[in-house]
Amino acid sequence: MTAEQIKEHIYGMGKLSKQASYALANLSSGQKNSILRAMAGELRAASAVIIEANAKDIANGETNGLSNAMLDRLRLDEARIHGIAAGVEKVASLPDPIGEELDKWTQENGMVIQQVRVPIGVIGIIFESRPNVTSDAAVLCLKSGNATILRGGSEALHSNVAIADALQKGGEKEGLPEGAIQLIPFTDRESVTVMAGMDQWMDLIIPRGGKGLIEAVVTLARMPVIKHYDGICHTYVHTEADLEMAVNIVNDAKTQKPSVCNALETLLVDATVAEKFLPLLKQRLDQKNVELRGDETTQRILGTSVVPATEEDWHTEYLDFILSIKVVSDQQEAVDHINTYGSGHSECIVTSNNEAAELFLRSCDSACVYHNVSTRFSDGEEFGFGAEIGISTDKLHARGPMALKELTSYQYRIRGEGQTKL
Amino acid sequence: MTAEQIKEHIYGMGKLSKQASYALANLSSGQKNSILRAMAGELRAASAVIIEANAKDIANGETNGLSNAMLDRLRLDEARIHGIAAGVEKVASLPDPIGEELDKWTQENGMVIQQVRVPIGVIGIIFESRPNVTSDAAVLCLKSGNATILRGGSEALHSNVAIADALQKGGEKEGLPEGAIQLIPFTDRESVTVMAGMDQWMDLIIPRGGKGLIEAVVTLARMPVIKHYDGICHTYVHTEADLEMAVNIVNDAKTQKPSVCNALETLLVDATVAEKFLPLLKQRLDQKNVELRGDETTQRILGTSVVPATEEDWHTEYLDFILSIKVVSDQQEAVDHINTYGSGHSECIVTSNNEAAELFLRSCDSACVYHNVSTRFSDGEEFGFGAEIGISTDKLHARGPMALKELTSYQYRIRGEGQTKL
Repeated sequence: MTAEQIKEHIYGMGKLSKQASYALANLSSGQKNSILRAMAGELRAASAVIIEANAKDIANGETNGLSNAMLDRLRLDEARIHGIAAGVEKVASLPDPIGEELDKWTQENGMVIQQVRVPIGVIGIIFESRPNVTSDAAVLCLKSGNATILRGGSEALHSNVAIADALQKGGEKEGLPEGAIQLIPFTDRESVTVMAGMDQWMDLIIPRGGKGLIEAVVTLARMPVIKHYDGICHTYVHTEADLEMAVNIVNDAKTQKPSVCNALETLLVDATVAEKFLPLLKQRLDQKNVELRGDETTQRILGTSVVPATEEDWHTEYLDFILSIKVVSDQQEAVDHINTYGSGHSECIVTSNNEAAELFLRSCDSACVYHNVSTRFSDGEEFGFGAEIGISTDKLHARGPMALKELTSYQYRIRGEGQTKL
Repeated sequence: MTAEQIKEHIYGMGKLSKQASYALANLSSGQKNSILRAMAGELRAASAVIIEANAKDIANGETNGLSNAMLDRLRLDEARIHGIAAGVEKVASLPDPIGEELDKWTQENGMVIQQVRVPIGVIGIIFESRPNVTSDAAVLCLKSGNATILRGGSEALHSNVAIADALQKGGEKEGLPEGAIQLIPFTDRESVTVMAGMDQWMDLIIPRGGKGLIEAVVTLARMPVIKHYDGICHTYVHTEADLEMAVNIVNDAKTQKPSVCNALETLLVDATVAEKFLPLLKQRLDQKNVELRGDETTQRILGTSVVPATEEDWHTEYLDFILSIKVVSDQQEAVDHINTYGSGHSECIVTSNNEAAELFLRSCDSACVYHNVSTRFSDGEEFGFGAEIGISTDKLHARGPMALKELTSYQYRIRGEGQTKL
């Protein structure tokens, strides 16, 4: 296909999606939930078809030398498809955010102004690798009344097409508008460029993937982008910290699951407690073979097993059993370090001093700030949202864990009896 | 100056602004209000300096052949500067949005999650023409705890610099951080390009000006942009409309102040009432010499004084005593027309049928939708916000009239007693 044909095809999807979005905005909660349940049913019914499509992706992946870890993330079987279907049913059971009255007041001239939660419209999701994102993202968008255009990675194309087809086909049995869920069948770079340029039909793009993908979308996009950048998360052990609690929190945040964005990357230790705290911590982290990279003071205290930390370490999201450590002279230095090197994701202070804690929470320019709690709780499920489309490191529209409410906009509805300014 | 020097200079402003934003986030309401009042005092004290600077802009404008209307918008005198200062004092009297608790709940593990309103950080404002925007925008940003980098048009450069200097100088007397309010002293295009690219320091750009400026910023910007596009506003006269009310509303929305974005541009009339309504309306609008551009049915009903409307008319924001008119066969056709040609700003239905009205409000994909009220009320002051930075035609973050709350973000603050996942 030529670039012009790809553009024409995706533009057609955009127009159809915008039309579908108007119909979706007027569906009742009951209708949307019936559609979601029908989708789950169709996913189960189509599991053989989906597994067959997935087998093609797996075969291609093996030919192309994907790692075993990558192949495992890609692989779908009966159990995984049933898991995806159960996820769809769970979204059906969540409260519908649409139509919620956010505010209402009467002006002096008698007109009543109501602020009501409405869908955003058309949401583009660009993602890599795991095919379950096709379903997870599409159903959250649907529940919040939005149409979706999905563009997945080439390695999962057959699986993604099969899942999107099952969702749309199942949903249509219960009145899902045509084009409500569409998957772009091209995985070349041109398709991202076309999507990012079609702000006449697409209201928002959410890129889910590596930094390179997000950067590319940010550079190209004409419509708003909600970014999920890395989590360079910090924990600061204050001079008045309960050191046992601090060891527990650091150990949890670093080692419970190091591969995720809310895991700890850099530890900041107040100079007044470093001599006592660092050896205690090392003892615990050694049990999990955590590599420590420290500044000069840390090296002096802990000895030669500590790798000297470089400027680059403060900028690095390891996603591994590696921890960088800096001893700071006071809380302000800790906050400055976080605001300079952090990614605005999640930070924690461990202290028994509430005043110091409140100042820390106010001063860190990050989505989630914790007092005596591990940063690993930055997550839609852990926050009680019942679902999550990602964790926004942006400050506009949605910040931190994003679920259904964050996929909505609002509208002012004004009712009167002929009010004019003349 | 070379492009490289401009970039270096503006980057320096960006870094300073980010530093200032951290200090601003921690100012109390009382401190911010003292700063604002000191700014107002300094504006009055510096009025001679500002008028002298303004005289240079006026002289340049005359040399460059600016129209009298443009020169009038540019001109500052004692009274106008006192008006600007009074505006600053009014912002001091508004409630402070920062620190507001938006939500708070406790999870099963005992951690308490609080969602708190915080500043966005650094806001870039790019504007054209009127120098009072320098003050209006900067003080709204300051009240909401944000640092501002302003970039005004070349025709008002001297005035803008003088006003920004007075604001910063006055504010510093009461503890305004250095660099909280900065004006870019270059007005060439390169300065917009540099601003739009510096997402490491700037969290949001708001372009205030013509479509060309907004388009340029949208294309270049790496950070979020809140757009204030045109208002192609509609009024639909339903089959069950009170026709006298409809004449009043249309007359108001079209003629009370046609030069503004919430003025009516296209009238949609239900075919069932067109024969009766259109002659009544014409009688009223003829008193103000409104030019009517109609579709075939309108031409047939109203005769040869109606200019035939073209496809282009439905896309046009006249901002003048011109009204395009289309007779539609039913409400769905009216809604489709609005969603196809409108700019998502403000729409009205005139009807006595509440069910029809509610369907219309839900179905129009616009920021403000009215039942029996003139669209001229789409305005921060009219909504009771006490101020306005503009009317967003975006659907992300802020939609419709934008005031202090719309210049804020939020942060999750989580407090516990050592909660971990392990």
